[in-house]
Amino acid sequence: MQATKIQLDEKQMPTQWYNILADLPFQMPPVLHPATGKPVVPDDLAPIFPMELIKQEMSPERWIDIPEEVQDVYRLWRPTPLYRARRWEKALDTPAKIYYKWEGVSPPGSHKPNTAVAQAYFNKQEGVKRITTETGAGQWGSALAFGCDLFGIECKVYMVRVSYEQKPYRRIMMETWGAKCVPSPSPDTKAGQAVLAQDPDTPGSLGIAISEAVEDAATHDDTKYSLGSVLNHVLLHQTVVGLEAKKQLEIAGDYPDILVGCIGGGSNFAGFFLPFVKDKLDGKPLRIICAEPQACPTLTKAPYAYDFGDVAGLTPLLKMYTLGHTFVPPPIHAGGLRYHGMAPIICALYNHKIIEAVALHQMAVFDAAISFARTEGFIVAPETAHAVKVVMDEALKCKESGEAKTIVFNNSGHGHFDLAAYEAYFAGKLKDYTYPEEKIKEALKDLPKV
Amino acid sequence: MQATKIQLDEKQMPTQWYNILADLPFQMPPVLHPATGKPVVPDDLAPIFPMELIKQEMSPERWIDIPEEVQDVYRLWRPTPLYRARRWEKALDTPAKIYYKWEGVSPPGSHKPNTAVAQAYFNKQEGVKRITTETGAGQWGSALAFGCDLFGIECKVYMVRVSYEQKPYRRIMMETWGAKCVPSPSPDTKAGQAVLAQDPDTPGSLGIAISEAVEDAATHDDTKYSLGSVLNHVLLHQTVVGLEAKKQLEIAGDYPDILVGCIGGGSNFAGFFLPFVKDKLDGKPLRIICAEPQACPTLTKAPYAYDFGDVAGLTPLLKMYTLGHTFVPPPIHAGGLRYHGMAPIICALYNHKIIEAVALHQMAVFDAAISFARTEGFIVAPETAHAVKVVMDEALKCKESGEAKTIVFNNSGHGHFDLAAYEAYFAGKLKDYTYPEEKIKEALKDLPKV
Repeated sequence: MQATKIQLDEKQMPTQWYNILADLPFQMPPVLHPATGKPVVPDDLAPIFPMELIKQEMSPERWIDIPEEVQDVYRLWRPTPLYRARRWEKALDTPAKIYYKWEGVSPPGSHKPNTAVAQAYFNKQEGVKRITTETGAGQWGSALAFGCDLFGIECKVYMVRVSYEQKPYRRIMMETWGAKCVPSPSPDTKAGQAVLAQDPDTPGSLGIAISEAVEDAATHDDTKYSLGSVLNHVLLHQTVVGLEAKKQLEIAGDYPDILVGCIGGGSNFAGFFLPFVKDKLDGKPLRIICAEPQACPTLTKAPYAYDFGDVAGLTPLLKMYTLGHTFVPPPIHAGGLRYHGMAPIICALYNHKIIEAVALHQMAVFDAAISFARTEGFIVAPETAHAVKVVMDEALKCKESGEAKTIVFNNSGHGHFDLAAYEAYFAGKLKDYTYPEEKIKEALKDLPKV
Repeated sequence: MQATKIQLDEKQMPTQWYNILADLPFQMPPVLHPATGKPVVPDDLAPIFPMELIKQEMSPERWIDIPEEVQDVYRLWRPTPLYRARRWEKALDTPAKIYYKWEGVSPPGSHKPNTAVAQAYFNKQEGVKRITTETGAGQWGSALAFGCDLFGIECKVYMVRVSYEQKPYRRIMMETWGAKCVPSPSPDTKAGQAVLAQDPDTPGSLGIAISEAVEDAATHDDTKYSLGSVLNHVLLHQTVVGLEAKKQLEIAGDYPDILVGCIGGGSNFAGFFLPFVKDKLDGKPLRIICAEPQACPTLTKAPYAYDFGDVAGLTPLLKMYTLGHTFVPPPIHAGGLRYHGMAPIICALYNHKIIEAVALHQMAVFDAAISFARTEGFIVAPETAHAVKVVMDEALKCKESGEAKTIVFNNSGHGHFDLAAYEAYFAGKLKDYTYPEEKIKEALKDLPKV
């Protein structure tokens, strides 16, 4: 019998998150205050985040304890299995060994609750009664609804109106966990009211939804705001994924030649690869490949510059590869990859050539997802499918070269609420989008001066 | 640290299915040929089932080997975890210990592939190129699509038209695994053509869909038919669930006082409880409670009689509790529980008072599902929610009595494609249905004479 998956015991689950900031061979560019242009200090962030998360955001400590209460919730689905994709390897006729970490077993169906649960817990510890956030496709909103539910915190999600109408199941999921979900723009905030006054029929955007969620938190004493990717503390919480995977690969007696993941804000892949980065810095010949859409080619085509995290320009300035905070994404199905910026940690690693990036078209991405579903069974999210495509390409290169490389990817979530995208694929209605170079150049003009 | 779940290693997965026929303290009533009224022999079934499954259907052997190829596919999601529902226990403030077996981790999202994979394998072994089936809500159709895909068999699913139109995601799932799914009635069969000629706008029914799938199999040499519940061999394949659960409870150092599951055709709960039945026959004080809808009260209100398995009267006659093969179910959301009959093994055990049954209204069932989702995280299928309600009631009785009973249920599948039902619940649009006693009496007139 050949093992299909390596399953850790609950006792083997990580009890600390790994903080890459302790091991980086360079200084991270500081986060800047949008008004003063000076590095932000904890107090600047205190109106919208609890102090413990702000501390984690800036911590130099290599290991940060996972509170027992958070571990206890993690155990509802963690440790997650690491699969050897034997059937897919056979179908691809490759000598490569392919492994994947399967995060789709969590109740919301992705890696997102790894940080949602932690954020809800730390907010609860500081007496926060209510958390606001925005969501596009709904993956993050449902994870935060789940996290808040378990710690008895009210949760309000501003969901981009077009998604709210097109993806009712994600909204119902949030309501099942007791969250309130409203279409954004909403009449509940000044930002929302202003947009509605101008255009009552607007489909909304992630930028507007962020503005509403931040305004709501900033104007209510008992309320904080929560972000599902990009920031250091979010990536930190996701390192449980990579720490488990590393242990599981050890049990399998393997070490990766190539790590692959998809990147939108960067948290799923960073959480997966960061625990391996130190090995690479210490000389391991490890390739780390980020998969992003051609429709949103942040690492592969955008400049490395300071920019806002949101459209309205309310957030601190982050040094990142950015398509410009006024970026309007083409309508690809991988909603979670349609963000103009990228986690600063990922950007710095890319800038220092420690990690690589590839941009992909969605038709080829869905081809790969079908190949995977028909051999491994699991129907992955369109975001995750970007990673699947890169793995398939690397495995086929191994077939050419005859090399038995070990390729490991983060299978970050299922596509149960994205089947309309698969339908479009089968109906031949998918389109590929290349984001125009001119638009990237144009966006440079909108970058804040620092 | 208190364990949340008991996870077996792949090496601990059962290698044999358990056949209850070897241990029953009574003779099962024979299956009768619809034309002759005489017990069927294997050759009668050969046009629509492969011989190995017919053998299993009638086998007196206690243990039947699970082929290595089937075990190999099972390992894509098995062994499944057994959870201790500590958060739910706490919320219910009960001294009871509640465990659940979680079958929602399979790619199609339920227990159904346990038999779909086995059936696809045995068909493949006998050179079958194509399998037909019917599906209502789509849970069974997607499981068979998955099973056929992995063994390279064509799969055609006749999906009740109203479901085909209302639940496009289940259809897309089947297509992702390469199956062909058509709305029934279809122009592809004589049965379908006849119905369409009479009423081109008919919403279809499971009865018509079965007729189409059986006709298709019977009129194509390379094609067999597959059924997802009711029959002995289907229940046999599902015993992997109970065999694993038994081992997991041993590891937890517990033995159940009460087992609970929902019943439609009976396969998920039978697969779960059958491996415990021998203990009960040997004197263990174990209660086994079947949960069914008030809208389809097969065990609790129907007579025990010979009836057809389908509406058109094409199948052999089975001795079962039956609401009459012309039964038209009220529109409750638990589509998988809307069957007029019940697995003959379950019926015989019920008739001999070895197992119990409870009939429930759907509003109370969804109340329980919400209580479960808000503590354990998982959003269960409306069918499974019936089991959740019975567990909740038993746990609350323990609160009253102060007894620390061990209650174990089969959490047979997730509700990701049933969130419209949760929405109806939140919107106050759910209705309760009690199936009228008069209708049951009336249906007695249609029972076949034997």
